[in-house]
Amino acid sequence: MVEMKTLTLAEIEDLSMRALVAAGTTDDNARPLAVATAATEADGVASHGLAYIPIYCEHVQCGKVDGKAKPTLERPRPGVITVDAATGFAHSAIDMGFEALIPAAREQGVAVLAINNSYNCGVLGYHTCRLAQEGLLGIGFTNAPASIAPSGGAKPVVGTNPFSIAAPGTDGQPAVLIDQSASTIAKSEVMKHAREGMPIPVGWALDAEGNPTTDPNVGLKGSMAPSGGYKGVGIALLTEIMAAAMTGATLGIHASPFSGTVGGPPRTGQFFIAIDPIVTSGDAFATNIAALAKAVHDQEGSHLPGDGRRNNRLAAQANGVAVNTATLAKIEAIIN
Amino acid sequence: MVEMKTLTLAEIEDLSMRALVAAGTTDDNARPLAVATAATEADGVASHGLAYIPIYCEHVQCGKVDGKAKPTLERPRPGVITVDAATGFAHSAIDMGFEALIPAAREQGVAVLAINNSYNCGVLGYHTCRLAQEGLLGIGFTNAPASIAPSGGAKPVVGTNPFSIAAPGTDGQPAVLIDQSASTIAKSEVMKHAREGMPIPVGWALDAEGNPTTDPNVGLKGSMAPSGGYKGVGIALLTEIMAAAMTGATLGIHASPFSGTVGGPPRTGQFFIAIDPIVTSGDAFATNIAALAKAVHDQEGSHLPGDGRRNNRLAAQANGVAVNTATLAKIEAIIN
Repeated sequence: MVEMKTLTLAEIEDLSMRALVAAGTTDDNARPLAVATAATEADGVASHGLAYIPIYCEHVQCGKVDGKAKPTLERPRPGVITVDAATGFAHSAIDMGFEALIPAAREQGVAVLAINNSYNCGVLGYHTCRLAQEGLLGIGFTNAPASIAPSGGAKPVVGTNPFSIAAPGTDGQPAVLIDQSASTIAKSEVMKHAREGMPIPVGWALDAEGNPTTDPNVGLKGSMAPSGGYKGVGIALLTEIMAAAMTGATLGIHASPFSGTVGGPPRTGQFFIAIDPIVTSGDAFATNIAALAKAVHDQEGSHLPGDGRRNNRLAAQANGVAVNTATLAKIEAIIN
Repeated sequence: MVEMKTLTLAEIEDLSMRALVAAGTTDDNARPLAVATAATEADGVASHGLAYIPIYCEHVQCGKVDGKAKPTLERPRPGVITVDAATGFAHSAIDMGFEALIPAAREQGVAVLAINNSYNCGVLGYHTCRLAQEGLLGIGFTNAPASIAPSGGAKPVVGTNPFSIAAPGTDGQPAVLIDQSASTIAKSEVMKHAREGMPIPVGWALDAEGNPTTDPNVGLKGSMAPSGGYKGVGIALLTEIMAAAMTGATLGIHASPFSGTVGGPPRTGQFFIAIDPIVTSGDAFATNIAALAKAVHDQEGSHLPGDGRRNNRLAAQANGVAVNTATLAKIEAIIN
């Protein structure tokens, strides 16, 4: 039985902030991550919420991320913002970038943000969601250390590399929020099965020769199975091209692990595209999104990607979020 | 045994041009489609090459596409081009759009092209490939009549909706060209099995209640299986949002069929994003793409998406393409 305690979103943000600062993060770098942690708990993605704060703190202390980094921004063209995250947290680099990206997208109709020398950005959909909350269509990409093999090969060349798209709704929240990785299942699930000594279902991971395996340890030494076979490889490559090649960040084949304390900064990347739907389509965007959502919701039991997070988000504002007391104890230990 | 005849690319373009004009297409609208047909044959995608010319001609004659359409272009913001295809061929609308999109992407660093009142654009990757041949990163989306059901539902709400990305190489051709639909298999394969009275494998299509079926006719009345389950639905929605909602085109749930002669113009849409990689990443783009390609090609038997089309394209320039003589006879009958 996991013991839980209900916290308000402000309490979650405050705890996160204090732990990150105690670990050696500047206020400027800690705040965007603390805000994101509260929002991630609100969305119901507990795996990437407070549970990650002790890992972030450990990564500041071991030098995998520079808690005192000062990201730098350039705008080489009217539609392009670039941010060098300087091996700091992705969140402060993205925050700095969005401050320029959002007005640029409104002025130009479209703008992009390319971030390199970065780190794990947590839940990618948190960031695209913010663009949708500003009335913009947001698309995001973030790359990760290689764990998926190419078609016809067995050695990993691309990460489980997620993409996300958030389409603005008429109530200030995304009407659709897609946030999906390129693999059949998250690598963390395979790691969890390995820790617990449980077999994994066929289709989750492959051995070092590219054959199916039910042994999580064999899978971790092989590769993650791409979702839908070669089409999942296509998604991982799409994301690798956008998040690493288009930003000049480190490719998944060269990046240090996101987990553990060795290898120094991963220096991976993020890429965001923000487009003003009113400019490209006038009022048709809202009408079409509403008709698409209706066609889905009129079918009993059917849902759009993002419906769950949206419901959680609205409930959390009013009721707070139940969090694991063991996680809270770890965070309190960092603060005190 | 299928009888084949080898034609040069110029001959394929000329035949396509004459058939389209004979069917009532203006020169301005026929040329981009004839050029695309030759390029599609060169790439080895025979299903969407000359074989489609008789269908295009029939669609001009039945009014599903207006062969004399005059697309109109606007540039509401520096980074946004919109084209109303006026129910004509997608290809002439895309050509008109690209003439503005390519210089806009170079000036602004990024630009987008939103096309509505359009039609089936053939092979989506043909269009993104052209952006890569100009040194730009090209992303494309095109929507289709609904055939995939949402997660938890059984009634189609989105098409098999492909997306494409083309990453420029250093030799004037794309280094990577991804062009993949959201379904496990093309709907045309299920239709072919139905015509031939052959069962389909489990996993290709679902019946009207959302259950697996091996009967192609039952599948055609139900829905196409999304690639990788809910993640394929996510890709179909991504494309629907971009190609229909962002352009003000007709949603897949309202679009007339692409095949057959009934229902009038489908008025579907295309959306393209063009980004200058030198602006977002400097020289790092070419270095990273080369390292990624090397990591794939160093593994025996492994390939990148687009390798096959690329090899076909280079061979076809020198040797021409073998085409089905039965298709040629149909095209000659339209011309004479």
